Amino acid sequence: MEVMQILHMNKGEGETSYAKNSTVQRKIMSFANSIIEEAVVDMLCSNNNFFFPESIGIADLGCSSGPNSLEVISEIIDIVYATNHRMGRPLPELRVSLNDLPGNDFNYLFESLPEFYSKLKEEKGGCFDRCFISGMPGSFYGRLYPSKSLHFVHSSSSLHWLSQVPPSLKSKVSTHLNKGKIYISKTSPKCVLEGYSSQFQNDFSKFLESRSEEMVGGGRMVLSFMGRRCADPCTEESCYHWELLAQALMSMASQGLVEEEKLDSFNAPYYAPCPEELKAVVQAEGSFIIDRLEAFEIDWDGGQVSSNSSSVAQDQKTGFEPMLSSGQRVAKTIRAVVESMLASHFGRSIMDELFRRYSEIVDDHLSRNRTKYIDLVVSFTRKP
Amino acid sequence: MEVMQILHMNKGEGETSYAKNSTVQRKIMSFANSIIEEAVVDMLCSNNNFFFPESIGIADLGCSSGPNSLEVISEIIDIVYATNHRMGRPLPELRVSLNDLPGNDFNYLFESLPEFYSKLKEEKGGCFDRCFISGMPGSFYGRLYPSKSLHFVHSSSSLHWLSQVPPSLKSKVSTHLNKGKIYISKTSPKCVLEGYSSQFQNDFSKFLESRSEEMVGGGRMVLSFMGRRCADPCTEESCYHWELLAQALMSMASQGLVEEEKLDSFNAPYYAPCPEELKAVVQAEGSFIIDRLEAFEIDWDGGQVSSNSSSVAQDQKTGFEPMLSSGQRVAKTIRAVVESMLASHFGRSIMDELFRRYSEIVDDHLSRNRTKYIDLVVSFTRKP
Repeated sequence: MEVMQILHMNKGEGETSYAKNSTVQRKIMSFANSIIEEAVVDMLCSNNNFFFPESIGIADLGCSSGPNSLEVISEIIDIVYATNHRMGRPLPELRVSLNDLPGNDFNYLFESLPEFYSKLKEEKGGCFDRCFISGMPGSFYGRLYPSKSLHFVHSSSSLHWLSQVPPSLKSKVSTHLNKGKIYISKTSPKCVLEGYSSQFQNDFSKFLESRSEEMVGGGRMVLSFMGRRCADPCTEESCYHWELLAQALMSMASQGLVEEEKLDSFNAPYYAPCPEELKAVVQAEGSFIIDRLEAFEIDWDGGQVSSNSSSVAQDQKTGFEPMLSSGQRVAKTIRAVVESMLASHFGRSIMDELFRRYSEIVDDHLSRNRTKYIDLVVSFTRKP
Repeated sequence: MEVMQILHMNKGEGETSYAKNSTVQRKIMSFANSIIEEAVVDMLCSNNNFFFPESIGIADLGCSSGPNSLEVISEIIDIVYATNHRMGRPLPELRVSLNDLPGNDFNYLFESLPEFYSKLKEEKGGCFDRCFISGMPGSFYGRLYPSKSLHFVHSSSSLHWLSQVPPSLKSKVSTHLNKGKIYISKTSPKCVLEGYSSQFQNDFSKFLESRSEEMVGGGRMVLSFMGRRCADPCTEESCYHWELLAQALMSMASQGLVEEEKLDSFNAPYYAPCPEELKAVVQAEGSFIIDRLEAFEIDWDGGQVSSNSSSVAQDQKTGFEPMLSSGQRVAKTIRAVVESMLASHFGRSIMDELFRRYSEIVDDHLSRNRTKYIDLVVSFTRKP
């Protein structure tokens, strides 16, 4: 099955939904806040008269569904509002587009819009009937919007998903190149590393090319996604959560609960790049200037809350139940994101047991290590 | 509850879904085909250079979900393609927006888009990567789109839904004005008729006002919705399907299966106007010229297929099972449309029994009468 058909965050608002298990992604979004603010203000205050348009096009790519989706839109609107107010300018019409793959839970997202609009009008007054929020289903590794229609593009926690599993890993001639693993691992052969790296370069290049046609000259873009700091793709910070998920699958395979063939043939359409790889693609594509590139560390369970030190206040903030261990928190977060893909490959019936085992393996790992995720935040200007 | 929160066609693709029970609406759409073609061709071929834009904005308002939603879009695209081809012009980018209330099943609709795009590219070639289809959740009785962003607006089988039940019918002082009825009936007091008529005038005026801001001068709009031919709002062709639904509810109330109070307090947010009322609102609002107004008759069960004369070929076309009676077909069609509202008022548990009784009452009625729906199709030009 194609990634477009099987990748979506868990729908609805149940126990295993993305809406209920996206605290880590929320935290990641917060790293980018000041960088988004800088980019939007800079765009609106540039001397270029082009940025007094009647309407501003804003797109959030890979918006998913749940409380995070409208959070970033709300922040961008606040910044536009405050900046225009400070400069004594009338507010332009805001064309806001929420993009994700067609399998995303847009229903859940759209049902929260009436309340969002009410709050906006209450806080900002009547002028906010000029904000038009729509949904755009489709892959951001291709064109989504008309030419020169976007002024600001944002994407958070999405661009580490590739458009496909690297084809070299799927080829029939060389089956099971990545035996027992589901992503890059210290034991993966070199061709697996190369396959992933080359798929990222192709995808990210297509992403930039598509955006460069859709954005106006001088438009801004802030992207944040999983990455790594060093050149070695086998570094723990970029792949160890997949390594442990593979361990959980292997333990099930050894007991006959998962077919070994199934495990060997699954590889995640995921890549966590390093800054140098990123810069090389941007330079080769040629339409964008990188204004800023930062790397942030984030705990696997999204914060400082551990099962021993949890307080009610903290847990209200994270949304997790107070008695969950870090491993359980991590397992719930990962499950909400990858279950659609794993269930399509391994079957839905093993999911509970898989993530139970995974949570134990993660707890064990975290009791001995403090491996963190690395989140890269990059701010771009579309060349004039 | 507000209409915006409780009105949506039945979701998904199950037995009672709108996707499986919208043959009548499909047939109604077909009445408008030649009128849509005339309007789009005329718009593209007008001497006005304004209509050589880089991108054309097209909106389908009240698109719902299911096979019909993309059918009309496909037809409009065909017309644009053929006309531009004939005139030797390059194809503009097409910004297509599918609108409905936030409770509509956009997920189902969006999941059918990848196949739609594939078919488009296969049939029309590479130039069709310039068609961008998005979803716009919200009420068309207010602004949905940025100023002057639309060139062609379409709506089918939606504008007979009012934004609310006429407030005079809901007022506490005059409860149960429309006792035992759920819409205009021959026994309804005059104030009920006036309440409905005035709500229609307000709503349709707001609809025109909003579209007039969103459309470019010279833009075209084709609307089709339930109506009536004569001035009398109590005519059977405009209200008798509601009369029979009220009979089904009354029969259940008489047996204690529905609270009488519930029946008395329910009124449908629906209005089937006559051409004169429509013209008066258009003239008063002032932004549009009516180019054409036609009335079409349609059988309640959507076609010539009756339980006695059904053939497999015909049933493949209508999508209904061959052995259904006309009453059952009508009940399924109406249920797919009104169940969300009725269930929210009367409770979900009585729905099966209600529509069973309704189908019997309709069968009985149709055995003695050939009452038809009237569909009005109106073509407009936005004044320059």
